[in-house]
Amino acid sequence: MHGYFSEEKSVDTVNARMGRNIEPRIAEVMASLVKHLHAFARDVSLTQAEWELAIDFLTRTGQLCHDERQEFILLSDTLGFSMLVDAINNRRPAGATENTVFGPFHVAGAPIRQMGDTISLDGKGESCLFVGRVVDLDGRPVEGARIDVWSDNADGYYDVQQPDIQPKWNNRGIFITGPDGSYRFIGIKPVSYPIPDDGPVGQMLASLGRHPYRPAHTHYLVTAEGYQKLVTHTFVGDDAYLGSDTVFGVKSSLVAPFEKAGDGETIWRSHFDFVLARLDQTR
Amino acid sequence: MHGYFSEEKSVDTVNARMGRNIEPRIAEVMASLVKHLHAFARDVSLTQAEWELAIDFLTRTGQLCHDERQEFILLSDTLGFSMLVDAINNRRPAGATENTVFGPFHVAGAPIRQMGDTISLDGKGESCLFVGRVVDLDGRPVEGARIDVWSDNADGYYDVQQPDIQPKWNNRGIFITGPDGSYRFIGIKPVSYPIPDDGPVGQMLASLGRHPYRPAHTHYLVTAEGYQKLVTHTFVGDDAYLGSDTVFGVKSSLVAPFEKAGDGETIWRSHFDFVLARLDQTR
Repeated sequence: MHGYFSEEKSVDTVNARMGRNIEPRIAEVMASLVKHLHAFARDVSLTQAEWELAIDFLTRTGQLCHDERQEFILLSDTLGFSMLVDAINNRRPAGATENTVFGPFHVAGAPIRQMGDTISLDGKGESCLFVGRVVDLDGRPVEGARIDVWSDNADGYYDVQQPDIQPKWNNRGIFITGPDGSYRFIGIKPVSYPIPDDGPVGQMLASLGRHPYRPAHTHYLVTAEGYQKLVTHTFVGDDAYLGSDTVFGVKSSLVAPFEKAGDGETIWRSHFDFVLARLDQTR
Repeated sequence: MHGYFSEEKSVDTVNARMGRNIEPRIAEVMASLVKHLHAFARDVSLTQAEWELAIDFLTRTGQLCHDERQEFILLSDTLGFSMLVDAINNRRPAGATENTVFGPFHVAGAPIRQMGDTISLDGKGESCLFVGRVVDLDGRPVEGARIDVWSDNADGYYDVQQPDIQPKWNNRGIFITGPDGSYRFIGIKPVSYPIPDDGPVGQMLASLGRHPYRPAHTHYLVTAEGYQKLVTHTFVGDDAYLGSDTVFGVKSSLVAPFEKAGDGETIWRSHFDFVLARLDQTR
């Protein structure tokens, strides 16, 4: 059979071109990608001018990327694609804490701190006591769980975005639970901030009538031997952007209470329990 | 309604976020893109590791682009996407010469030459007399048609790929038809060549068990007032890659005869008539 192209059989023609001895998963993924990309062009009767815009958009998106900026992740995030991939790969039984997007601002190797320590090193913002437990689905404490926490500062920037302004490891730290599974540290009530919107993704959001803001949140990476890795945030419930997170990261189960502490040590107090699923506990 | 994400309603959640007063066509195209991208991730249960590979692939594809290299166009071409968009936008009645991909090597402003002139300026390759007519769907000659022709040289490179080696405008020229619609010029029998395969697209082709070659072809852009712009090639029928063009550009109607000329002026002779559809003649 010749491999000549026709509008009607475009998908078959392209996918029939694959070799016989290639990695089966590559064949599966690429055949599906071609099928859906072609269906997209067909459904909207994509014009030549729109195709040229797309080529230019993707090119500029790639060219903007550097060590501190990943515009393609922003694109994936703002199209809900990152959250979908996260959801597909982290189906958990009811009761387990839900995942959300990892985001680009985690830094490996944060200092391990003692329970009760503060992670806010710049003295800015409204102090908050973060407390809770790491438990399994039966409510039993998980000992030795590693809670890696990070958030923006009161100006809405992560330390790595302001290396000359913020102290290193500002609003970051790792806490390891004891036999009762509890944790306790002092940070700040986080604030909402815009994702970087001076590039192609910002232009896309503007053309879609969307804002670039994320509601205030604190990031967590919670790991423990024998349990599924938990990548999540807790969100501040009264945030103006809670219902319109530009990366679609909010889940209602992740909205945490932030209450006035009243005891003078901190302004706010936020209680949240992390419920880990064992490796074999999937939905 | 809150805009919280769920795996099941991911498409609706993302598309509901669009503003109300945006350009309707942008809304239509982006809603379809989100729908098909999400369907792709769902269909193959895209893993987090595969997502990371995709982000890296797209980033490298963008970063390789520069004035003389457009890796995203190569990606679109090798996935059959360029040909599909071309087909959607150039549906013509039976009998009209078919379109094919424009490719990245056209240069505007080639010299206008006289009928019978040669376009091959480097003395390389097997000479070929190209002859034929530009006619309408009723076979009537089209006067004043502008035939912009370009091809690689006998080494498989376009002049712009070898600015220090080939004469400027080598294997390029524009011919304008007279009252009988005929054209006649001397070039070379073109040769097959690989698209640039030292980047991400080359890696993709290798992982798909595909070669990077295009079968030998001569490019044409034929325009005339009142007629649809024709972007096409003619192909050499005995080429080893005719059935496996890496950009899917071949159509059987575009395979032209290349016959031994016999009269001594050139080695080969290729006859091809360009049949133009009027602006209102669509399929």
